[in-house]
Amino acid sequence: MVSRFKFDDWTHLYATRTSSLKSSEVRDLLSVGTRPDIISFAGGLPSTKNFPMQKFINVTMALQYGPSEGHEGLRKQIQKIVKEEGVKADSENILVTSGSQQALDMLGKIFIDPGDPIVVEAPSYVGALNAFASYQTNFISIPLEEDGIRIDELSHRLSELKKQSKLPKFIYLVPTFHNPAGITMSEEKRKKISLLAKEYETIIIEDNPYSQLRFEGKAIPPIRSFDDSVIYLGTFSKIFSPGLRLGWAIAPPSVHEKLIFAKQAADLCTSSFTQRVVEKFFEDDSWKNHLEDLIECYRKRRDVMLRALEEFFPEGTKWTIPEGGLFLWVELPDYINTTQMLAEAVREEKIAYVPGRAFFADGKGTNCMRLNFSYPEEDKIYEGIKRLSKVVKKQIGLYKSFNI
Amino acid sequence: MVSRFKFDDWTHLYATRTSSLKSSEVRDLLSVGTRPDIISFAGGLPSTKNFPMQKFINVTMALQYGPSEGHEGLRKQIQKIVKEEGVKADSENILVTSGSQQALDMLGKIFIDPGDPIVVEAPSYVGALNAFASYQTNFISIPLEEDGIRIDELSHRLSELKKQSKLPKFIYLVPTFHNPAGITMSEEKRKKISLLAKEYETIIIEDNPYSQLRFEGKAIPPIRSFDDSVIYLGTFSKIFSPGLRLGWAIAPPSVHEKLIFAKQAADLCTSSFTQRVVEKFFEDDSWKNHLEDLIECYRKRRDVMLRALEEFFPEGTKWTIPEGGLFLWVELPDYINTTQMLAEAVREEKIAYVPGRAFFADGKGTNCMRLNFSYPEEDKIYEGIKRLSKVVKKQIGLYKSFNI
Repeated sequence: MVSRFKFDDWTHLYATRTSSLKSSEVRDLLSVGTRPDIISFAGGLPSTKNFPMQKFINVTMALQYGPSEGHEGLRKQIQKIVKEEGVKADSENILVTSGSQQALDMLGKIFIDPGDPIVVEAPSYVGALNAFASYQTNFISIPLEEDGIRIDELSHRLSELKKQSKLPKFIYLVPTFHNPAGITMSEEKRKKISLLAKEYETIIIEDNPYSQLRFEGKAIPPIRSFDDSVIYLGTFSKIFSPGLRLGWAIAPPSVHEKLIFAKQAADLCTSSFTQRVVEKFFEDDSWKNHLEDLIECYRKRRDVMLRALEEFFPEGTKWTIPEGGLFLWVELPDYINTTQMLAEAVREEKIAYVPGRAFFADGKGTNCMRLNFSYPEEDKIYEGIKRLSKVVKKQIGLYKSFNI
Repeated sequence: MVSRFKFDDWTHLYATRTSSLKSSEVRDLLSVGTRPDIISFAGGLPSTKNFPMQKFINVTMALQYGPSEGHEGLRKQIQKIVKEEGVKADSENILVTSGSQQALDMLGKIFIDPGDPIVVEAPSYVGALNAFASYQTNFISIPLEEDGIRIDELSHRLSELKKQSKLPKFIYLVPTFHNPAGITMSEEKRKKISLLAKEYETIIIEDNPYSQLRFEGKAIPPIRSFDDSVIYLGTFSKIFSPGLRLGWAIAPPSVHEKLIFAKQAADLCTSSFTQRVVEKFFEDDSWKNHLEDLIECYRKRRDVMLRALEEFFPEGTKWTIPEGGLFLWVELPDYINTTQMLAEAVREEKIAYVPGRAFFADGKGTNCMRLNFSYPEEDKIYEGIKRLSKVVKKQIGLYKSFNI
């Protein structure tokens, strides 16, 4: 645990339940128990001598409980990775999480009292909406446009909320290669939103799982690169593997401390075993070759999808052109309901997508859909978009035949 | 997800926030996306082709997102393990969790509204107390005696609570090789508490991480073995390795479904990678040899600790004699404060233990301590108890010199 004094700018933002999150005596004592000169009857550690290592892996520490904040070695690797994204962080302010999803859940837990407002983009990442909804938040949805969140609208809503003394607990953003929208927030807007957060005494959660997956264009620095008060989330899911469930949260020290207490209550610590595996994988630079292969592969798949959309999709439909990431966003004529259309797409053409409504806290997006291009192979993408276009054309034809 | 109709006996027990936990469209659609005939643009899956497997492990599925409830193969292994404990469970009612701690956190989330009472043993497992406290519960602490919780006291408190229309959301128990107390609840009490839970329309959470670690005596069947409405928790931490963070929750179908939604919001799914590793380890019966080695090792260590306590600890002190598990519980004269004494034990004699107060929600236990015997080696245990006895004797002497 970080022991130096932390001035806490966020005491007005924490949920009531957060006051019950505190360091446990077991935890404080485990730190003594790791000193080799101490005979510790304190922890609940199994014997390490008996681990069936020969059958398994020769890393004893990987099989024992680890510190709640994550292994030091892995946090140093994360420090290097985010540095390439333009973010400077002390390894002691990095918390290893069981995927970014866990960070979202814990942030909901420490900030949201029932009924508290939070700001989200519309559309927003469905996993974040689910996590925050589970703490009974009041979503303030701000629409997206091509270069990111509508700053005018955000500014207007914040000033309204201020009049009601109901300022949002935080602003949740996916600025780069947005999930589901596929767009990227401009540098100008990033600067403006950082100023708005300060003006309205709230905190920004910047979720950045995709920025390393850039196919083209110039990288735009994360908000966290020029604003230390931002809570910055990242993950190994996209640059290495989602099945390992490893992510990170970089937060101001006072928030970091609360996250550690929440982490202890949530699962004590993230798997030591997977932490060691990933630490090993990232210890030299060969992961960058892997990343280059991924980028090349996804770029080609995006290109095929864009080409197929151009070729097959009818007039009155439009889509975003992502410069990276995994998703693009399609808007159909507003009389089409993509949730209803999905049943037909699966049954008739054996195509699946996510209906737009899932990504809106305010019930909008019924005529939209999210398409993933990272997983299906190129020929499947081409064939799939062709088949999906048939379903779309049929829906449009059906509507028109009823509305002549 | 289990799709058959579930009659829900527990609707009066769920927290208000639980109504916001529901299945996501992404989740429902991912189940379609795994059909080989479907071209899926739905999920957010990275490409599996590009995983750097040759450097790593040749199991593609281990690197991809998995189902929220856990991999089918591992759930079948868990089914076999709990069967040996006397518990029959369908693999579809088993949820894989990131350690038991996650199950405790999620159960707090789905049951506890701020101020809701829950019943815990006094003392109780500190990780459970922390998890439940983080949802602002009102702890009802029922003292332990040699053969488990004080049933008379429990029955009395339940009838009092009923008069106030404030029945507890659940009763949390560690019946076998209790942490921290080291005792085991008698079969008679297990039956009585099951009846009490029914009478007072509440649910039992039976946390059973240690029962496979029995050194002597006859196994007592878990409450879940004769009462299907019990939520039964287990873990690989004690029989295999805590560093992997793998546990399970077996719950009635309606509670199981809510746990799956909470799991999705918490971390999407537990690491596929560690699930596969453990599944492989448990696929033949050789883990039982490992378990026998562990039991033998811990039994010897317990014996050394008991012998040393007999030899060195002064009159007026007493301790439990656990038939299994990792811990025993020491009670010192009631004028000794073990939290204050710890500083001296560490500084003067380089000994660590956990002060008793950590395990009580009601501030009691100040003269008690939990001693772990699974981790230190035999000679360290002997030497450690000898040194600890010096600190205890000094405290007693100090008190007596002031109170002649």
